[in-house]
Amino acid sequence: MKNETDGIGSDRIIRRKQDGSLEFQRDDLTVEEPLEIRIGRKALATTMRTPGHDEELAAGFLISEGIVRIGDKIEKFSRPTSSLNRENILVVELATGLKLRLGSTRRFGTISTSCGICGKASIDAIRQNFPPVRSKNIRIGIDTLLAFPSLLRKQQSDFARTGGIHAAAIVDVDGNLKIVREDIGRHNAVDKAIGRAFLDGLLPLDRHLFLVSGRASFEIMQKALAAGIPIVAAVSAPSTLAVNFARESNQTLIGFLRPPSFNIYSHIERVMLDSL
Amino acid sequence: MKNETDGIGSDRIIRRKQDGSLEFQRDDLTVEEPLEIRIGRKALATTMRTPGHDEELAAGFLISEGIVRIGDKIEKFSRPTSSLNRENILVVELATGLKLRLGSTRRFGTISTSCGICGKASIDAIRQNFPPVRSKNIRIGIDTLLAFPSLLRKQQSDFARTGGIHAAAIVDVDGNLKIVREDIGRHNAVDKAIGRAFLDGLLPLDRHLFLVSGRASFEIMQKALAAGIPIVAAVSAPSTLAVNFARESNQTLIGFLRPPSFNIYSHIERVMLDSL
Repeated sequence: MKNETDGIGSDRIIRRKQDGSLEFQRDDLTVEEPLEIRIGRKALATTMRTPGHDEELAAGFLISEGIVRIGDKIEKFSRPTSSLNRENILVVELATGLKLRLGSTRRFGTISTSCGICGKASIDAIRQNFPPVRSKNIRIGIDTLLAFPSLLRKQQSDFARTGGIHAAAIVDVDGNLKIVREDIGRHNAVDKAIGRAFLDGLLPLDRHLFLVSGRASFEIMQKALAAGIPIVAAVSAPSTLAVNFARESNQTLIGFLRPPSFNIYSHIERVMLDSL
Repeated sequence: MKNETDGIGSDRIIRRKQDGSLEFQRDDLTVEEPLEIRIGRKALATTMRTPGHDEELAAGFLISEGIVRIGDKIEKFSRPTSSLNRENILVVELATGLKLRLGSTRRFGTISTSCGICGKASIDAIRQNFPPVRSKNIRIGIDTLLAFPSLLRKQQSDFARTGGIHAAAIVDVDGNLKIVREDIGRHNAVDKAIGRAFLDGLLPLDRHLFLVSGRASFEIMQKALAAGIPIVAAVSAPSTLAVNFARESNQTLIGFLRPPSFNIYSHIERVMLDSL
């Protein structure tokens, strides 16, 4: 598995084909490797991710976890000079003054390919208590909404379309795709997209939507809220908690976005239902 | 969302139908709620799960994390007597002597709907170092393997087939379905199935297969290894790390099990390729 490019590994496997015959062939696999995120010398969290865009992933994670806030600055990213695993370790240096938010009570765990809210042992600590989205009369047309899935597919790699990887996209209300990121973990794809926006000084994304290729669970909605995103559209199903969270957070949640159908689970006022 | 039964919540939503018309309707949603797992008074981890089979989930998690080992005993499960959230908290009492494995270095985080290996901040701590599967000349026929997906579909709830929930099944080498569990988090479905087997005294499952409805990532393979399972078959794609882990752990990993096709990624010797 040495030929890893663009998050894809290649390996020899045995494949049983449609006609029942067997063949040895090379197969593309999504790369899954740990990334240890350090703040200075402190190992903060390890996430199972697809390599690439590591700085964005770290920045988005710190935003999602409330350690770095909108308007804060990250001083620099670096790799440790001496480590066998240096490509799987990223050191974040926060601007002076931000270190104080890393109290001793903050403990993050290892985050597997679909996890996004690790770090707190008790129920009370799951929610970050970000304020609800401030409504700015953002509205989206049905035609714009229905165009998103094919827009996303065009931007995704061929490999992504095979289902081995998740995608997250940030889109403006006029339907322009701004950022697309892919990762084996859906939370990582979301963190990478938010991280890119943060590094470009675009937060809060209060005139943008989040489009995710899979399901919408609680942590996806909370990450969107951390970035100030008022509308989340998922290709697949939301969970009960995602719906409840969206209602409380003034977020519009759209699920099963499979043109020409979709469901609206919360804050319907942001969808122009008469636009088609 | 009060009418929650069998992990399904019902809620009023707006649906855009195929013909473009809109209707208010009730929609089934997968329930996502936190479960805080306590060992005695200590909050060990919180996982975002679909309620139900909580004892199995806790037992499977403890097995997967190496806190409880094959042959160990759990004394009892209980709910806290006074707590607003008592249905989302489970207290595990380990048999005397087992408490020592909970050293101060063990810190688990909150585990979202698809996470399975939370708890360690650094890369070195991800692997549990379970020994490889001991080979017992277990072999499975192609016909048996190809029958699994439809077997699983028959056992899953109607709701599961809509894609809002993951399933994990334990099957014997003759193709008999032993345990099926469903959850919004694939790692939870796996933990629940392993936990049931543990509580029934069936571990190690060295003559059994694991069948998972989604992808196979690192943590799924490690959980299977914790239960001593030699063969894992996934309906969707494995990751690079899952394949590498399977090779090192003497596990047979089958992916894209979509009859009549499938791929074999490791330890092909357990599949009787001439059986059809």
